[in-house]
Amino acid sequence: MSIPPPGFAPLPDPPYYAVIFASLRGAPDDGYGAMAAEMAALAARQPGYLGVESARDGTGFGLTVSYWADETALIAWKAVAKHQLAQRLGKDRWYLHYALRVAKVERQYEGPEGR
Amino acid sequence: MSIPPPGFAPLPDPPYYAVIFASLRGAPDDGYGAMAAEMAALAARQPGYLGVESARDGTGFGLTVSYWADETALIAWKAVAKHQLAQRLGKDRWYLHYALRVAKVERQYEGPEGR
Repeated sequence: MSIPPPGFAPLPDPPYYAVIFASLRGAPDDGYGAMAAEMAALAARQPGYLGVESARDGTGFGLTVSYWADETALIAWKAVAKHQLAQRLGKDRWYLHYALRVAKVERQYEGPEGR
Repeated sequence: MSIPPPGFAPLPDPPYYAVIFASLRGAPDDGYGAMAAEMAALAARQPGYLGVESARDGTGFGLTVSYWADETALIAWKAVAKHQLAQRLGKDRWYLHYALRVAKVERQYEGPEGR
């Protein structure tokens, strides 16, 4: 695997797991940034963590995809993340709505070709 | 399934497929918006199309996740998308880099609870 540009997760060949987290944020300055940074640092220390990709637009809608080596890694992270969020007054402090999907990555492509 | 807020795809119970497209855009005003809108309209008319979620931040890094009923729908869309892009001078006109992952969604959750 080659080293991708900043923002892209350096991923191994499939199969691996992806957690697709879509969310709509409320007020912009409510401690979310600090929480998100802390959660990201925590995730990066978990066994089986492969990487993360994230983008949020001007309306507050965002997508974060974290990548995990296998289901064991994913389940361990879920337990840690739940505990962390429970300690912090709950998710509804930051999110008006969210949807989380757990998916098994089967194939991948990169481009443009020849760069 | 309940109707989600704007930005979120209304999805059936798993399993279904997700195409995770991470991309870094170059110059902002190069016809990309028109192309993206056209591709989205085209995708929405494909059999097996379930929905799409998309966010791009201020740096030009974006994530688009499209959802598909099954592998047949996904393969048909791939052929259509390839053809469209080939007609339009190629992907490298818009993207400095992209990564595409095809994943099977196995589980999903929504929240916050009670809203």
